[in-house]
Amino acid sequence: MKETAIKELTKVELKNPILIEGLPGLGLVGKIATRYLIKQLKAQKLAYLYSPHFPYFVLVSKKGSVRLLRGTFYFWKNDNGENDLILFTGDSQAQTIEGQYEISNRILDFAQKYGVKFIITIGGYRVETDKPKVVAAATSQALLDRALQANAVISPMGSPIVGTAGLILGLAPFRKIEALCLLGETRGYLPDPKAAKSVLEVLMKILRINVDLAGLDAEIAKAESMVARLRKIEEKRMLQAEEMRREEDKKITYIS
Amino acid sequence: MKETAIKELTKVELKNPILIEGLPGLGLVGKIATRYLIKQLKAQKLAYLYSPHFPYFVLVSKKGSVRLLRGTFYFWKNDNGENDLILFTGDSQAQTIEGQYEISNRILDFAQKYGVKFIITIGGYRVETDKPKVVAAATSQALLDRALQANAVISPMGSPIVGTAGLILGLAPFRKIEALCLLGETRGYLPDPKAAKSVLEVLMKILRINVDLAGLDAEIAKAESMVARLRKIEEKRMLQAEEMRREEDKKITYIS
Amino acid sequence: MKETAIKELTKVELKNPILIEGLPGLGLVGKIATRYLIKQLKAQKLAYLYSPHFPYFVLVSKKGSVRLLRGTFYFWKNDNGENDLILFTGDSQAQTIEGQYEISNRILDFAQKYGVKFIITIGGYRVETDKPKVVAAATSQALLDRALQANAVISPMGSPIVGTAGLILGLAPFRKIEALCLLGETRGYLPDPKAAKSVLEVLMKILRINVDLAGLDAEIAKAESMVARLRKIEEKRMLQAEEMRREEDKKITYIS
Amino acid sequence: MKETAIKELTKVELKNPILIEGLPGLGLVGKIATRYLIKQLKAQKLAYLYSPHFPYFVLVSKKGSVRLLRGTFYFWKNDNGENDLILFTGDSQAQTIEGQYEISNRILDFAQKYGVKFIITIGGYRVETDKPKVVAAATSQALLDRALQANAVISPMGSPIVGTAGLILGLAPFRKIEALCLLGETRGYLPDPKAAKSVLEVLMKILRINVDLAGLDAEIAKAESMVARLRKIEEKRMLQAEEMRREEDKKITYIS
Repeated sequence: MKETAIKELTKVELKNPILIEGLPGLGLVGKIATRYLIKQLKAQKLAYLYSPHFPYFVLVSKKGSVRLLRGTFYFWKNDNGENDLILFTGDSQAQTIEGQYEISNRILDFAQKYGVKFIITIGGYRVETDKPKVVAAATSQALLDRALQANAVISPMGSPIVGTAGLILGLAPFRKIEALCLLGETRGYLPDPKAAKSVLEVLMKILRINVDLAGLDAEIAKAESMVARLRKIEEKRMLQAEEMRREEDKKITYIS
Repeated sequence: MKETAIKELTKVELKNPILIEGLPGLGLVGKIATRYLIKQLKAQKLAYLYSPHFPYFVLVSKKGSVRLLRGTFYFWKNDNGENDLILFTGDSQAQTIEGQYEISNRILDFAQKYGVKFIITIGGYRVETDKPKVVAAATSQALLDRALQANAVISPMGSPIVGTAGLILGLAPFRKIEALCLLGETRGYLPDPKAAKSVLEVLMKILRINVDLAGLDAEIAKAESMVARLRKIEEKRMLQAEEMRREEDKKITYIS
Repeated sequence: MKETAIKELTKVELKNPILIEGLPGLGLVGKIATRYLIKQLKAQKLAYLYSPHFPYFVLVSKKGSVRLLRGTFYFWKNDNGENDLILFTGDSQAQTIEGQYEISNRILDFAQKYGVKFIITIGGYRVETDKPKVVAAATSQALLDRALQANAVISPMGSPIVGTAGLILGLAPFRKIEALCLLGETRGYLPDPKAAKSVLEVLMKILRINVDLAGLDAEIAKAESMVARLRKIEEKRMLQAEEMRREEDKKITYIS
Repeated sequence: MKETAIKELTKVELKNPILIEGLPGLGLVGKIATRYLIKQLKAQKLAYLYSPHFPYFVLVSKKGSVRLLRGTFYFWKNDNGENDLILFTGDSQAQTIEGQYEISNRILDFAQKYGVKFIITIGGYRVETDKPKVVAAATSQALLDRALQANAVISPMGSPIVGTAGLILGLAPFRKIEALCLLGETRGYLPDPKAAKSVLEVLMKILRINVDLAGLDAEIAKAESMVARLRKIEEKRMLQAEEMRREEDKKITYIS
């Protein structure tokens, strides 16, 4: 494996498939959202993507077995709608600049092979907020409008979209593929299922599919209690520091 | 896209074209100068340069659309003079050592295709000064003389010229292309339209073309007021630090 | 040498060979264990592996001669058992991400050439402990069971195995090769022959070969006395720091 | 230029040539020694070596002209002896791991083309000393003996020789070329003509050629006065720090 390679696990016929991409990044928003969707839709594995630009370790999975880092393509047959889905998520972003371009291009190669005309990438958008909005950018006005109608807001001009979620949008037009990027606002320093849920709400409106999002609420509660705990620890630390400063002040006051 | 690639947007016949290059760097001098020239001359787009050595993010442009980082070649038909112009600027320098050489070579390939015999690269030159001079280096004495006659000063021996503006001069002689580098003196830590203007004054003399530089004055005023504001903040911070030190001294004085 | 290359030193016929890999890493466990095995079995050199991804220096060996960094394959004819051994160790891990994948793949190429069906990689597993256990991960349940029966414990799910010892397990299944990873628990900051001995005890049970491990005891005693010395230095330093703090406290006490 | 390339400037017949290599490194010993030899022997330019692994800037040379970073091969016809010389020095070492291997291999390609059977590399060896010795390592015992007879000392076992001076020795045996490395002991943080002179004394004995080394004495005097000046500055700074500490102590003494 000298270059990024895709290993197909099965062959399927897909009906006007839309590709949804969500790799780990800010607040893990892309990965949490895509993984949840895969689980709820009972999407099936389609192919693995391996790359020498992933980090050079393997993961021990359940029962002591081991596997390379990889991305996985899943597919879902949408019996009631116009578009089947291909979903892509994975363990890691590429670790080199060239690898970032290479992996985005391999994902687009695979999309083209299945006749994909429309891609949605998912990620996080760093912001200090309690009510995460969903920020959208797209390769065409029509696509962006669909996102705005689904309650997304327009991405501020000049802001960069880093990593695969961004590069796919930059590279897709060269292949006559349309692409939309949905970024859930997040503080970004902890896994953020709340931002992932916001993205999925927008996504479901755009795709006109129905997925029960209640399963994310337990994860959100857990994440929020962790944030609360971290905040308490931080406050305590600050109180102690304050206390110490006052003690110091007293000493100095005694002196003078 | 495994390597740097150029996508041509149109075909034109150009008359003894001169290539002017200005990518972002110290004080953004090269980019500000080249962009201003493009705007004033109403130069038209000729080609895009894409590279997997640019940073791996995309930019959200106006109205939520997205594009890859890129360089852009423009052309300008000089009806009254001997030389048409090709102008090159872009979003970023290459991020890897090999990428720096690769992009400079692709720019030279493109220049050769249009029969370019003379290249001028533009950048900043770090120096603490209020009256920025323009520093010149060239692949031939004749070329350097033209710059000196246009009020540039000679670059001190042994000083390095970093990035594309320098590498082009290093690589051009292998293709029998002459190249001149004009560096505007700048403090370098903020966009510096004043240095860009100095460079354009020299450039206009060399090229014997006339461009109204008044449009840069507003940008210069804005940049200077920002510098003044930063200086005031800095002074205030130093005064406060001084004050605190004195307070500390008083305490100690009380003690002894 | 633009890529990793193997230079064969001799040709041998090997009987169902098992490959054992141990490069430098945490606590040097893999290298110490493999090197000790090579010495005790009087294994012979089979091939060198060179790579432009090793660090760019050479080592001065005995008598002022010099050699490139390299890996070395050894072989051992097992007259009383079913499997001959190929043993691989070396001076260094690869220094780049792509190099890590390339070297692991070249090792697998070589293993395939000799019809290897089973690989065991050896390394260290960071943990604060005085009684190092041996942690195992494998490409199949049957293989893992063999390790568990030999007193290894199962690797916790989700933990990464970094470097060649891990990548070989990730890449082996693509070549229909089974692989087992044995990691000796170690603090990791000093060469750890004790962890290496633990690994060898497990390995000998798995391979049903007998190697006298007493020779490692001298190394273990030396390592332990060095740890003890370092601890004393550390304790002394902490006592001095404590002393200084008390002296400071006295001064302040005098004041108040 | 996608890879390291050599541009030949002239064609010569050389008699059993020996290659001497000295790139910038510790104390600039290799470069100072080789450059001095080139000057004294009035050696002539033979070829340039260019590489995309050199740093990505160009140098302004005399009179404002510009050139790529490069290495230069020189030749010297030894009318009275058995061996002509090829001498190689340059502006910089390669900046990437792969580049280090690539450049060393290109130097060896060039040496092979001229039938070189013996290479001497020159560099610095970090040590705190006032009487710099010359440390030697070689690809054969016979070669090492020649260096020891010329007053070099043997390099301690296990010590690494970093960069081109080392890699050439590691790679040369694969081409049936003998190589010797001479490292002048140096503190390494300033250009060290004294260490360069020590190396040249050994080199002249090995090559049985005569070069006047007096020209280095002025450089040595200059370097020593700079070291003396730096030492004085350092001493003054330490005295001031001491003074300040005493002042602080006084204050505290007043308090208690």
